[in-house]
Amino acid sequence: MAKVILQRNRKKRLEQGHPWVFQSEVNRIEGDFELGDFVDVYNHQNFFLGKGYINPNSQMIVRILTQNPDEELNEAFFIERIRKSWEYRQRLLPNVRSCRAVYGESDFLPGLIVDKYEDVLVVQILSLGMERRKEWILKGLLTVFEPKAVYLRNDVYVRELEGLQQEKGFWYGEAPTEIQIEENGVSYIVDIENGQKTGFFFDQRQNRAAIAPLVSQHETVLDCFTHTGSFMLNACLYGAKHVTAVDISEHAIDTAKRNASLNGFDNVEFVVANAFDYLRDAVREEKQWDVVIVDPPAFAKSAHAVRKAMGGYKDINLNGLKLVKDGGFFVTASCSYHIHADMFQKMVEDAAFDAKKILRQVHWSGAGYDHPKLLAANEGDYLKFAIYEVHSRM
Amino acid sequence: MAKVILQRNRKKRLEQGHPWVFQSEVNRIEGDFELGDFVDVYNHQNFFLGKGYINPNSQMIVRILTQNPDEELNEAFFIERIRKSWEYRQRLLPNVRSCRAVYGESDFLPGLIVDKYEDVLVVQILSLGMERRKEWILKGLLTVFEPKAVYLRNDVYVRELEGLQQEKGFWYGEAPTEIQIEENGVSYIVDIENGQKTGFFFDQRQNRAAIAPLVSQHETVLDCFTHTGSFMLNACLYGAKHVTAVDISEHAIDTAKRNASLNGFDNVEFVVANAFDYLRDAVREEKQWDVVIVDPPAFAKSAHAVRKAMGGYKDINLNGLKLVKDGGFFVTASCSYHIHADMFQKMVEDAAFDAKKILRQVHWSGAGYDHPKLLAANEGDYLKFAIYEVHSRM
Repeated sequence: MAKVILQRNRKKRLEQGHPWVFQSEVNRIEGDFELGDFVDVYNHQNFFLGKGYINPNSQMIVRILTQNPDEELNEAFFIERIRKSWEYRQRLLPNVRSCRAVYGESDFLPGLIVDKYEDVLVVQILSLGMERRKEWILKGLLTVFEPKAVYLRNDVYVRELEGLQQEKGFWYGEAPTEIQIEENGVSYIVDIENGQKTGFFFDQRQNRAAIAPLVSQHETVLDCFTHTGSFMLNACLYGAKHVTAVDISEHAIDTAKRNASLNGFDNVEFVVANAFDYLRDAVREEKQWDVVIVDPPAFAKSAHAVRKAMGGYKDINLNGLKLVKDGGFFVTASCSYHIHADMFQKMVEDAAFDAKKILRQVHWSGAGYDHPKLLAANEGDYLKFAIYEVHSRM
Repeated sequence: MAKVILQRNRKKRLEQGHPWVFQSEVNRIEGDFELGDFVDVYNHQNFFLGKGYINPNSQMIVRILTQNPDEELNEAFFIERIRKSWEYRQRLLPNVRSCRAVYGESDFLPGLIVDKYEDVLVVQILSLGMERRKEWILKGLLTVFEPKAVYLRNDVYVRELEGLQQEKGFWYGEAPTEIQIEENGVSYIVDIENGQKTGFFFDQRQNRAAIAPLVSQHETVLDCFTHTGSFMLNACLYGAKHVTAVDISEHAIDTAKRNASLNGFDNVEFVVANAFDYLRDAVREEKQWDVVIVDPPAFAKSAHAVRKAMGGYKDINLNGLKLVKDGGFFVTASCSYHIHADMFQKMVEDAAFDAKKILRQVHWSGAGYDHPKLLAANEGDYLKFAIYEVHSRM
């Protein structure tokens, strides 16, 4: 096994439990290796730090799989890691049937994402090191989950950075590509073939449940960026009198409509519109709702985009706040990793100041139990979610 | 009504919804006033900012009650504010019978704390302005809650800074000073006369519930700083096989024992010990638990005490982490306002590094629904609570 020896001066990332080794941290590599091979990583004093897989074509040259020198990286290892991931979900989300089942680095399986939709698994293999262990991974998935089918959603650009091709299709078995799942007692149709990412966003499960007390007295709700309707559907379930659901995508709204029908909710107005424009117009028309929800897609996809993104967040939060009845609730989120929690909170404070509102924080959280995060990896902090009670300043 | 005119250069605190005016922000006061009188507050351009009560003997010379110039500060105002506070709890904590019912500034009633223990209210009046409206407050409490008794726990030093005396005793009606309450399905004896603060800490209600999945498979638990046993009792309720409950106070442990008996839990070992020493000894003896909880009292009571306090937190977190079985859980909290969230997280990271542990964050939160916080008031962020899954680095 080749030996990767790190520079003396580097952040002690591995010792903190972060599984990435960057090109710039490598002093030298002893021994031959092929792309994706397992390698040992040592510090400059020849002290063992961990083992993982190597890809010199990636900025992250090594991703660590274990820091235990005695652990063998073989099929049994992969099966055990996948089993641990599933046991964790079963513990934290008792009786769960659909959830994120493997969350890459956070489940000590860097580069592997598995979402479970009832008895179908949808998988993303995001690195060359993992691609080379596909057979072990499949064995692990079949052993642990006994699924009816496994679908690959490897149609992601990051694979090209690893020297892999994009692809999608069934990897094992066969099943309809539309699957009905349940979350918080709400049913959804999930399109695993053409839906965003693997078809559904599980990370807001607990946040969607957190809106229950806000609508339990039959409140009116505006749900902006409703996508396939998740907050709208939860609002209906928990007692909302009427929900206005807005999204720019006609396809998303069509799916949201189907989801509403599926659950028997007929108190929803669907609007295909740019949420920025919709919010601005609603302010001009002096519309008001008891509860306003803004859960936009990531505006800041890179560090460069932060300034512009902050402007976008401020805009929708400012107008969203103006639309909340006095004493009502404002629900706001950001899933941009580059917008840190303190930036997000400052943005909301600025929006409240401009909107002449006093906000009382009811709830603050991040992604749910099936999206744990490594303490040492800030990447896991991408999701910010908050509920505020809104009072007019005068 | 006297008019307090602020300096041109000041933080726009009131405009952000923070209800305090500091001495240093006042330019001049026009008109006569007596201690605790209601006053109007204006900015340097004679723009109305709010009205509240004045005490020139306090650093916080004015605390704002409303920013609405049309709102009259009278008995009806106080009754309405108390009613709103209770309605908020009833909404967020359906069917709650015992909770923090009024949380001072966060309920737009600065200087007033009310804890509800079944049909008895325990009240702290922390400012001269509120002391002068005692009759209105009592009227509000009787109207909204119809309690059997109201007990004053005004035995707090901060009253002396306001020029008030310390006192305690029944203010209205009479009742036993030991009250049995229920929280998360656990019963507690609360001593409203001699217990800490008003007798119970409600702020960790949701955090105590959050440990359920950690112990549901009959785990062993170490609960350090158990005080009157709240985490221990929740652990037993949710399925823990055995709990070791440690506190330095014999009186606290006696109460914890009574609470365990009350709930029929006999799987608890009680230890009267300094938790710092206990943790260190347990590490030396190579003891291990599935779940370790450290929920200490505030180590940093002032900004000056932060450095020393951080050392204390690090010590108990480091040793606590060492006592967790591989794959088990570590539950840690700090209620020191001066230890900010990022400082707390950094301290845990450092402790994990030294303990050679990789931590996976399962849960992160603050105080529960009955302790809302004004977005503009950092003072509300005092409680940090986290659950980590603990893995040995090798």
